Amino acid sequence: MPAADRIRDHAAQGAATTVAAHRARRRLRADRARQLADLLRRQLLTGAFADGPLPHEDLLAADYRASRNTVRQALDLLRAEGLVDRLPGVGTVVVARKYPHGLDRLMGLAETLREHGRVSNEVRTMGPAPAPAPVAERLRVPAGADVLYIERLRRLNGLPLSLDLTYVPLDIGTALLDADLENTDVFRLLETITGRPLGHAEITLEAVNADAHSAAVLQAPRGAAVLMLERLTHLDDGRPVDLEFIRFRGDRITMSGLLRRSG
Amino acid sequence: MPAADRIRDHAAQGAATTVAAHRARRRLRADRARQLADLLRRQLLTGAFADGPLPHEDLLAADYRASRNTVRQALDLLRAEGLVDRLPGVGTVVVARKYPHGLDRLMGLAETLREHGRVSNEVRTMGPAPAPAPVAERLRVPAGADVLYIERLRRLNGLPLSLDLTYVPLDIGTALLDADLENTDVFRLLETITGRPLGHAEITLEAVNADAHSAAVLQAPRGAAVLMLERLTHLDDGRPVDLEFIRFRGDRITMSGLLRRSG
Repeated sequence: MPAADRIRDHAAQGAATTVAAHRARRRLRADRARQLADLLRRQLLTGAFADGPLPHEDLLAADYRASRNTVRQALDLLRAEGLVDRLPGVGTVVVARKYPHGLDRLMGLAETLREHGRVSNEVRTMGPAPAPAPVAERLRVPAGADVLYIERLRRLNGLPLSLDLTYVPLDIGTALLDADLENTDVFRLLETITGRPLGHAEITLEAVNADAHSAAVLQAPRGAAVLMLERLTHLDDGRPVDLEFIRFRGDRITMSGLLRRSG
Repeated sequence: MPAADRIRDHAAQGAATTVAAHRARRRLRADRARQLADLLRRQLLTGAFADGPLPHEDLLAADYRASRNTVRQALDLLRAEGLVDRLPGVGTVVVARKYPHGLDRLMGLAETLREHGRVSNEVRTMGPAPAPAPVAERLRVPAGADVLYIERLRRLNGLPLSLDLTYVPLDIGTALLDADLENTDVFRLLETITGRPLGHAEITLEAVNADAHSAAVLQAPRGAAVLMLERLTHLDDGRPVDLEFIRFRGDRITMSGLLRRSG
């Protein structure tokens, strides 16, 4: 290899090494920021920071043995999630609160959030409609039989929390038409109407990006992460009475529970 | 009001009514598309459609008593979620599959997905590090004591599924350093190392939008919805041994379980 080429080659290798090293450093920094953000998120959600601004970046850096840059980057991640904001002259403040929905017991929204405020429901649609096959099958009604379909936007203390699509067999659903759906969980109404307690529910949880229309209804940014809950609820005698598709705003709800190793 | 003004006023009102009616129609269409998409999503996830393309739009429209426009819009929503795609000359095909993670029993990823394929783990970081206060407190080790920190990218049949950050007390963690973490759940290793079964775990689930770096690691689009699981796992004697922050790709994982009304 001619000397000029060798030199060029060395220079290129040097540049490549620098780029690789730079990328590795950036990756490491991002990994550390994520790690710290997860710890801080937990602290925010459990109210570990007293009211008012978060501790100063220097203090957080010392407490978490992180660099100031990592602290800043971690706070940026939490800001992008809408959990904190940076106010000039004040510092970083908690701006959003997530409410814990129980995963241990089958509960309606107003029940599970009772201590956090008042749940109100805007009924967007309500009426009988022929059940599509997968709804009929799960509610054990003849295919095409009418079921009651309800669509509600649910709020906690006025803030949109979830968009719920609900199917109820019509023999029970008819009584719901005159019920106070604005202020009462469907769960409680079902127990009153049937005179039986609910028994169990099969649930499935997913994280999805909100489509434009769902986002608009929930007053969330387009593409916002949504915790999607599908739930088929049965009376205590095993009859399925309530099929729901619920979109919770990801920035306002957490689901907590206890799992055991042995069944 | 002069006649000309009255006419203008009427015309304006007419236009306003038309705009309002148009908006109402569009809203109704979007609501119906969401409703249908939720039913189809369920069918897709449970494998109700045979292999190959979905039934033709006309057939879906008849089956679900929806207009063709609604069917098309519902399929667009599922396409935006990455669940289906439209192939010219073929129709709509299922392109993504979501794997069910059990919510009823405390299980490791390889355990819960055993029937779906092989889980492999890329260890991105592993080593002892001083425990920040919230980690020390939850693992019941002295603040600042070293804990083992592990960061893994977990794959099912080669596809990125989750990014897991794990903290383990060092007396147990040291044995993990030589273990086959690439191919074995931490849960199983903890039981082998301690000679005790795991007991229970406190879990919290959230939906968040992936930050740019996490998205890149998970090979998901920036902002993709992520199912975030925080889990503190205890041995059967109650000792906390494993604190994890897990980001599941929202388009690849569902969590399913059973809830009961009475505790």
